[in-house]
This record gives sequence, structure tokens and C-alpha cells, in this order.
Amino acid sequence: MTSPGLFVSLEGGDGAGKSTQARLLRDWLVAAGREVVLTREPGGTSLGQVLRDAVLHGDHIDARTEALLYATDRAHHVASLVRPALARGAVVITDRYLDSSVAYQGSGRDLGADEVESLSLWATDGLLPALTVLLDLDPVVGQSRLTGAPDRLERAGDEFHRRTRAAFLARAEADPGRWLVLDATMPADELAAAIRTRVEKLVA
Amino acid sequence: MTSPGLFVSLEGGDGAGKSTQARLLRDWLVAAGREVVLTREPGGTSLGQVLRDAVLHGDHIDARTEALLYATDRAHHVASLVRPALARGAVVITDRYLDSSVAYQGSGRDLGADEVESLSLWATDGLLPALTVLLDLDPVVGQSRLTGAPDRLERAGDEFHRRTRAAFLARAEADPGRWLVLDATMPADELAAAIRTRVEKLVA
Repeated sequence: MTSPGLFVSLEGGDGAGKSTQARLLRDWLVAAGREVVLTREPGGTSLGQVLRDAVLHGDHIDARTEALLYATDRAHHVASLVRPALARGAVVITDRYLDSSVAYQGSGRDLGADEVESLSLWATDGLLPALTVLLDLDPVVGQSRLTGAPDRLERAGDEFHRRTRAAFLARAEADPGRWLVLDATMPADELAAAIRTRVEKLVA
Repeated sequence: MTSPGLFVSLEGGDGAGKSTQARLLRDWLVAAGREVVLTREPGGTSLGQVLRDAVLHGDHIDARTEALLYATDRAHHVASLVRPALARGAVVITDRYLDSSVAYQGSGRDLGADEVESLSLWATDGLLPALTVLLDLDPVVGQSRLTGAPDRLERAGDEFHRRTRAAFLARAEADPGRWLVLDATMPADELAAAIRTRVEKLVA
């Protein structure tokens, strides 16, 4: 496993198990001798933490400002953390990336998916993951798995979450070379094995 | 003076007298019975204050992140403050607007002016001022007028500030209907009179 850097993103609704699978994948790669950077969006950098607080808990944020806050977080995350790690050959695993913005802001709210995607691609200077894992889950099941007080997106309603799920699935179907779609109700160890199989091909 | 809302921006380098002229224009309009909202970018809203601190005093911010921070501030400023004020018929006077981003980030650094302008126009859903006053000043004179510790942009160097000045002048020349270019070394009361003459035609 001496290939250059590899960029992997995990996508899906809240409660789908993204952070669990990110950790399992990291542990397996580290055991195999790889440098792994486990990160997330929004909030993967210190500036990003400020932006994350603003977007998830602020009031009266219009759709464009929201999309720009995520894009700013993403630009800083990619420039200061993701690209340097990839350049030195690390595997970067991010819990959410630009597909979340396109699904949540582009399809779920009142901005166009193409506009939101263009904004994120400009922010990142075109960086896309080699692999995006979608942990697909009925949003009703996902919500029931969550604990703690819901944030603004979590309170946004069932119809919004159904549209978001459909947007993730449509994006995956349109680009199967980048996506791996898994049923998030499968046991965690089976999901981890399926992800490893796909990653193994990419780092071989 | 019962026309609908009017949007005026003041542009130019630091030390050119933008805030003085903004106040003088406000006082004159208020005396004439208009509602005036005096504001600024970045930092015209509470979210904007957070972003302003991040962009002016943060370290290691790449060019795209910087442009996106300004665009985010602008989107929120326009949606939450500028557009509502214009809708109720107020005059909005802003100390800096999107031309600052285009001049500073687009021409002065490594992003293209067209890209930065497109980003700001997307952020504001296309809102341009009816009048933009450029207080044009040799940057060496402007720097000598400043007091206090310089922020990151103020420290950016003479060549950067010369390119920025040239970018403001080129934008003004390309769109004389929107711009009023004034020599910032003129006495403040003469500058104020020139601005009033132009504003008077717009609110008549």
C-alpha cells in the first residue's frame, strides 16, 4: 500500500453510521501502515468550527448565505488540510463533503443543485473524492437513531429529508465509478467489509 | 424626496475618507427627511463581524477561502439588512461593497476578477448600487493617514495597493453611469458637495 494519497468521503443522512464507518476504515488502514487523516465537514478546521456554529445554530440565515458558509468551510478545509495530506500520500477520510451541500442545499431547499455544485467546485478548485460511500437509510429510521437536541437541519422535516435522500441516490446513480451505495441497516461489520473491498482496489 | 430606496456604495483605499463622506451624506439625507441606513462590508451584521475577524486577522487563509468569506458576509448583509431597507424606501449607504472584492481579491491577488465578480453577484442575487463613489487616492498618501496597528490587507505592500487602485479606476471607467470618481485629496466639504449633487439627481 504505497500508492499516493487517496480521498474518500462518507455521505448519507444523520444517524446512518458515517462516523462509525469512518473510524473502522481508518483503523484498518492504519493497521496496514497507511497515514490516515480522519476529518469532517463542516468544521474540520478551526475556522470551520466558527462557520459550523454559525450555520447550524444561527438564526435567520438565508439560503445563499448558508450555501456560502459551507463553501467557505470547504475551501479552507481543502486548502489547509485535505490537499496537503493527499500531497504527502495520506488517505483522507471525510465525514461529509460537497455532495452533502448539493443534496441538502441544492435539492432540498430553494437553490438549484447545479449552482450549489458549481460553487463547491470553485471553492475546492475542482477536488472530488476518488470514492464516495453513501450509507443509504430511510430518514425516519435515521432520526430515531439520533440522540441529543436536534440542530437546525435535523429539525427541517420529513419531506426535506426524503428529498435529500433521493438527491444522494440520484447523484450516485449518475456516477457509479465514484460512488458505493450501501444499505445502512446492514450490520456495521458487513458495511465495513464492503467499504474495505472497494478501498483495497484503489490503494492496491 | 419620496422616491423608493436608493443603494449607494463608497469605495477606495484605506485612509481615503470613505467613512467621513458616508456620515456627511447620511446627515444631509436625514436632515432632508429620508430614512438612512449607514453600514459597511465586511462586518455589517453580527454574523459578518465573526467573518470579518476571521478574514482580517486570521492566519493562513488561501485566496479562495478569503473571497468566499467576503462573499458570505455580503450575502448575509444584503439579504438581512440591505434589501429589507431598500424595500421600505430607505437610502442604504455602505462603506465598501462588491467592487472592493473584485479590486482587492480579483485584481490584486491570484484569482481572476471575473470569477470574484461572479461569486459576489451570485451571493447578492445580482444587487448592484445605483451609485458607487470612488474616493481615489495615491495609496502612499492613504497609508500615511492611517492610525493604529495595520491589519492583514493594510500590510500587503505598495505594489498590491497600486494594482487595487488601478482596478477601481478601470471599473469606474467601464461603467460611468454607476460610478462617481473623486480626487480624495480635495477638502471633505467639497467632496461632500460633489456627492450630494449626484445623489440629488437619483432621489429627485
